[in-house]
Order: sequence, then C-alpha cells, then structure tokens
Amino acid sequence: MLRQPKKIPFAAVLSIGDELLRGLPDTNGPAIQAELAACGLETRCREVVGDSLPEIADALRRLLADYAVVICCGGLGPTQDDLTRLAAARALKRPLAFHAPAWRAIQARFRRMQRRPDPVNRVQAMIPSGSTLLPNAWGTAPGFWLQVRGGCFAALPGPPNECLPMLRRSVLPRLRSVSGPHGFGVRRAGLRVCGRGEADLQAKLGPMFPPSGQPELSFLLDEPGEILVTLTVRGMDALLARTLLRQGIARIRRLLGADCVGDARRSLPEAAGRLLSAQGRTLAVAESCTGGLICRRLTSVPGSSRYFREGVVAYHNQAKLTRLGVPQPLLAKHGAVSEPVAAAMAAGIRRTSGADWGVSVTGIAGPGGGTKAKPVGLVCLGLAGPGPTRIVRTVRFLGERDVVQRRSATLALDLLRRQLLRR
Amino acid sequence: MLRQPKKIPFAAVLSIGDELLRGLPDTNGPAIQAELAACGLETRCREVVGDSLPEIADALRRLLADYAVVICCGGLGPTQDDLTRLAAARALKRPLAFHAPAWRAIQARFRRMQRRPDPVNRVQAMIPSGSTLLPNAWGTAPGFWLQVRGGCFAALPGPPNECLPMLRRSVLPRLRSVSGPHGFGVRRAGLRVCGRGEADLQAKLGPMFPPSGQPELSFLLDEPGEILVTLTVRGMDALLARTLLRQGIARIRRLLGADCVGDARRSLPEAAGRLLSAQGRTLAVAESCTGGLICRRLTSVPGSSRYFREGVVAYHNQAKLTRLGVPQPLLAKHGAVSEPVAAAMAAGIRRTSGADWGVSVTGIAGPGGGTKAKPVGLVCLGLAGPGPTRIVRTVRFLGERDVVQRRSATLALDLLRRQLLRR
Repeated sequence: MLRQPKKIPFAAVLSIGDELLRGLPDTNGPAIQAELAACGLETRCREVVGDSLPEIADALRRLLADYAVVICCGGLGPTQDDLTRLAAARALKRPLAFHAPAWRAIQARFRRMQRRPDPVNRVQAMIPSGSTLLPNAWGTAPGFWLQVRGGCFAALPGPPNECLPMLRRSVLPRLRSVSGPHGFGVRRAGLRVCGRGEADLQAKLGPMFPPSGQPELSFLLDEPGEILVTLTVRGMDALLARTLLRQGIARIRRLLGADCVGDARRSLPEAAGRLLSAQGRTLAVAESCTGGLICRRLTSVPGSSRYFREGVVAYHNQAKLTRLGVPQPLLAKHGAVSEPVAAAMAAGIRRTSGADWGVSVTGIAGPGGGTKAKPVGLVCLGLAGPGPTRIVRTVRFLGERDVVQRRSATLALDLLRRQLLRR
Repeated sequence: MLRQPKKIPFAAVLSIGDELLRGLPDTNGPAIQAELAACGLETRCREVVGDSLPEIADALRRLLADYAVVICCGGLGPTQDDLTRLAAARALKRPLAFHAPAWRAIQARFRRMQRRPDPVNRVQAMIPSGSTLLPNAWGTAPGFWLQVRGGCFAALPGPPNECLPMLRRSVLPRLRSVSGPHGFGVRRAGLRVCGRGEADLQAKLGPMFPPSGQPELSFLLDEPGEILVTLTVRGMDALLARTLLRQGIARIRRLLGADCVGDARRSLPEAAGRLLSAQGRTLAVAESCTGGLICRRLTSVPGSSRYFREGVVAYHNQAKLTRLGVPQPLLAKHGAVSEPVAAAMAAGIRRTSGADWGVSVTGIAGPGGGTKAKPVGLVCLGLAGPGPTRIVRTVRFLGERDVVQRRSATLALDLLRRQLLRR
C-alpha cells in the first residue's frame, strides 16, 4: 500500500518550531527516527523549520512528494505561532475541518485539571478533512494521521512527553499495518556497552563485520560512558535477517563479556535494577558531587521501589558526618574527596539504611574547587555489599561539570552492575 | 552585498552524514545556529542528509536558491563516503580544482603528527574553483567559502571540535564583513515563566504584541511547567531594537509579577539559588517520588554548594521515619502521600539538616501504585522556612512517570522561589 511497494520505503521527519532554530536541540527528530528504525523503517531526511506558514507548507509538500512516510512534530498548540494544522491543510490540499470529538476531549481534559478551556484552544480541534484524529492522553493538542497518494503522514505535538507516547501508541501500529508481512526491510539489534571507547570497539569488532557486508556495524554514544553497538541488515527475508542479527549479537556478547550491559533498549540503571531484583537485594546511595543524579537515574525506572531504598545527597560535609557516620578524623585527614571517605560513605549508607548494597561517590565536579593535588574531575567511588565486598575506585574525568557528573553516575552504576554479575 | 539587501537575510544549515540518520543527534546544526544567532543572523532551515551524492547536491542547490547564507558541515574527510566537495561542485556548477597550498598544509599536519599523508588525503585539497580555502588548525580536512549569486556558502568538516572553531575563526568574520553596519538585524530577549499555561499567556500577552507588529511574541515550552516567552525584533537600528525589547520585557514583567522567574537563560534552580545566596540562606531537600531530581537540578548549577546543604531521597517509608523523623502514627493514619506527611518531611529535613529552608515532595509517579483515592500523578509538596513559614500543596499531574516527576520538581522549586521573593 506504500508509495513504492517494490523499493524499500524511506521516512522523513520534520521538526517544527522557532525554538529549534534558536539553538535548542531537536530531541524529537532523533527519537522518532530511533522508534521508526526499531520497526525497520529507515529515515533518510530530517529537517527543522521555524514557525512560518509558507516554510512549513513548502517543506511538507516536498517531503510528501519524495518520501513514503512523513512524520512532523510541533506547532499543534493553541497559539498564533502554532501553524502546522494550516500548513498541512495547504500541503495536503485538504481544508481544515472542525472535529467535534477532539474538542470534547480537550474540554474533558481541562475539566479534569479543574480549569476552563480557553476559546483559543478550539483551534486545536481543527484537522485537515479526511484525516484521522490521533488522541493525546498526555496534553491538550491532538495529532492527526492521513494516508495520501499511497504514502503516510502523521502530525504530532512538539513536547517530547506527548509526541513520543503518541508515536508509539497511535502511529507505529498504523505504520506496521501498512508495511506488509516483511516490515520495512531494515532490521536492527543493539547492545549497550560500558567501559570501552568507540575506537577500541571499532578495532575489536570491525574485522567481524566488514563495511560492505551484512550485518552492518555502527556505534552510537548514549549517556557519556555508554556506547550503543548496533547491527543492521537491509532488504532481507525476515527469518534470515533475525538469524543473522542473533548470531552477530551473540558473537559480540562473547567477545565483550562483562563490558556488555545487555540489550540497547535497557538502560544501565534498569540493568543493575534487574540484577538486584533477581537476587532479592536492596540498594541505597550516598552521593556528593553527582548531587542526586544516581538516585534520579535509578528512580527513573518504573518499579525501582522494589530494590531502591533511599539516597542521601551529602553535599555539605556535615551530612557526611551525621547522615552517613563518616568519622570526623577521617574527613580531616584525607579530605572529602578521598578513597577512605568514599569507602566510609558506602559502608555508612549501607549500615544506616539497612540495604544490602551501598554505593557512594565523592568528587570535584567543577568548575571551581579544584587544587593541584585534587583537580576538577577527580572522583572517588565506593561500593559496600553483603559479606566482605568492599571496593573503592579513583578516576579523573576530563570535561565540564555536567560531563563529570554524568560519567561519575554511570561509573557508579556500572561498578555495582559488575559486582552483581559475579554473584 | 547579500542576495536580498532590502530584506532580512536568512541562513540555512545542512548537516551531512549517515550517522545523523541513525539516531545520532546533530549537535553541529544547533551549535552553528546559536553562533549565527549571536551575530544576529537568523537560521530558518536546518536539514540533515546522509552520505549520498545526489541527495547532498539536491539539498545544496535548493538551499542556495532560497537562503542568503548556507553553511554545511560534514563529508569533507578523505574516504569514499565523504561527498560534500563533489556535491558542492555540482550544486555551485564549479568544477573541483586542486589547491596546492591546502595540500601542503595537509602534508605539514601529518608531518607534525609524525605520520605520512596517505595519497587518499589528496582529495581533501580539491575545492570548487573560485572558492576560498578555510584552513583547519584542528584536523586534516580544510573547509571552503564562496560568495555566489550575492549569497554566501561555507563548507566545514563534521567533527564538532573542528567545525565550531573554524566557524568562529573563518566564517563569522566573513559574514560580519558582508552584513553591513547593523548586523543581520534580528535581536531577541526572553523571560522564563512558571505557573501559567501557554494559552493563558497567549490570551494575556497576545493583545500587547499583535502578530504583524514588532516586537514579535513567541512561546517555548522548556522543562514541563516552565515556558520561555520570547520577544523578537527584526531589521531595526540596534539602539531602537534594544529599547523596544527592554520596554516589552518590562511590560511583561509587570503583567506577570511573581509568575515571571527572570531572564530566560537563567534556569529555575539557578533563580531560586540566587535568592537563597542573596538572603544568606541555606536549603535542604526531602524527596520521595521525584527520586533525586530536585537535588539533581539544584546541584547542576555551578556554585550551588554555597546554599544547598543536603538531600534525602526517602523512597522507602523507613527513610521517612529514621532520616526525617516523620512520626509513625502520622504515616499510618494519612499514608505516605498526604499533606501531613509532606509537612512533616519538610519540617524534618529542615530540622535534621540545620538548613534555613526545607522542601519536600511525596507522591505517586506511576505507572503503578495508584488507587481510586490516591491516583497516579497525585503529589503533595511541603515547604518549611524560617519563622512560621509552613506551606503544603496538593496537585494532580497528568502524564507519564517522567512528566509527573519533572513537573513535581519544577513546582517544588517554584514554591520555594515564590516564598523567597516575598522576603
């Protein structure tokens, strides 16, 4: 049913919004691509335009002519600079029509929030005639879907927390239903890897997957300190593709051993959490320079309350003494950023929380606070577990405050994961 | 000298590389835009294409016809998938010419690295005839610059640590020299706003800034619960533009009062932190459903150790009892997600930390754990301050786990900021 049934159809993603032209990164574009890729649809063009009616309409017209699937996001809000509805109507040559159920859904949403909808919100219920409304359970702006000239078009709202769930719930199933039994012809599988650089991985894995052959090997930096290794096969029978990917992934796993965190879609805290769950163990965290980031990453995983007990962000030294029981002489002798203090913090959070595992981080995130002996980026990590497990580690990260914090959190979670793997 | 000297010229940025179509974010595009914006040049289109000769050439041809300034990056390496030189030669209708000084510079760079240049690197010295070489002090691939049909074109290498310094050193000065005394004519100012929806702001501020006039009003959702209000002035004398923006911003500030957090570039935790610093006060945080996010946002601000003392992520009820001194009967009677417990958590973290202000959040982030009486998204917040200040607030957020967590953190920080404003 797609425009080019004999060829592999390609997608284009158009992100709309002046803010994206003012230096704000377009996070939806890559995220939509990744979701499309996961169901085998390859995106060959990603474009960003501002809130300008002729420019949005021109871009849509051109993309609809060239690509089998066009997804746009942004510009569906109620204000005068939300022009996607109008631009799509022009590009599709279908006038806007008032969609009564959409308006009722918007009104109901406002009622649930105990607010009255503004009349200005009524424009959000206008969609190009003949298109299907895509309900938005996460915000007021509904999206819409249309199969045109044998291709598919979807318009989604800009906020990522509305756009991506709507894509998954309303757009991907529709795309799958039009793609036929072999999907869109591109299949991928990926692994998350910690503790290795990209050049190192290329040198080690490159010879196994020559550039001209299948599967094709590629790398993607995720969180700092984490790399996604991806295998891609194109235009191949589904069964053969799956077999090739499975074999390739198994070879990489064997080669990388404990450096391989697992499936790329599973985050590092999720992987560590699954090990804790499986072993019936609990965790508590004491963090200083990471300032809550380790706890934040752990608790971003639904169901983390099963194994995560509590965290202490011991930013000020006083908290290290009173909350974690780090001995004052130890702090005075070695300073807050030291292996003895990291060890005492890990043992302290484990003891005071009653958790099975205690993780600690103390360091100098910068930009200030560095000295010659203890420069910015110096971080000490501790791990205290059941039995005699006591680990300390010192590293020096180069980079800005945010990079030092994120790499420290990743290393702490990865240290824990590796210890849990050995049990 | 630009193509449309009477109109305000716009720029387009084209990022080239297959990796950008595999979900890797395009960091160069937004960074180039931000640099152009800083010298008043507005980017109206950002595009990403893969390593395909016809697709790059088509995109360049179209962008060169439509925009006064076109900057492309990527595809200048020595390998067979580096096609930007060829594509630019086609789009500009200028054959590639060997540039002897460029080749000498590449050879010299290799010598400095004690390596011999590969003959394959010789293609990197081929640039469209008539264009100016842009030297690359940070890598082997030189760029090039051309004024064509009254417009400007620059090709830069893909690695951000080469692309951006070359932009700053070689491209921006050339753009400034052709832009005339008033620069490129776009100036902006923005405010961060909490506690109001986009439609509400449109209804309130829209009449002050009619769509056809100057300054132009626009909105941008930042963190969930935060909106950036931006005023833009185009094609106007610098002094007049600054005056108009200053007056417009002052009017918005007066109208919005405490809902206005301040300059858009300053984050909400930074704004709250500045108030704490100015008043010589300290802060501690007790968070449950936000799982460390409030601490994380506070400590992402450099220098936050001046006012942020510590945080407790009291995920498990036991931590609420032992770390924060919440009375067991209170927990048993009202449940963890309740106003009395939020109040006790705020008072408890304040008391046990010795900080001047205590902030607390307890709620049900979901997806599990909701009941009819206490549904997912229900959040109670508490604030305990010097003197008699005791505030509790209950809200219900709609959305997924991540949205509930982020909106809760924003509301907690905003509650604190508003209280600090009154002092």
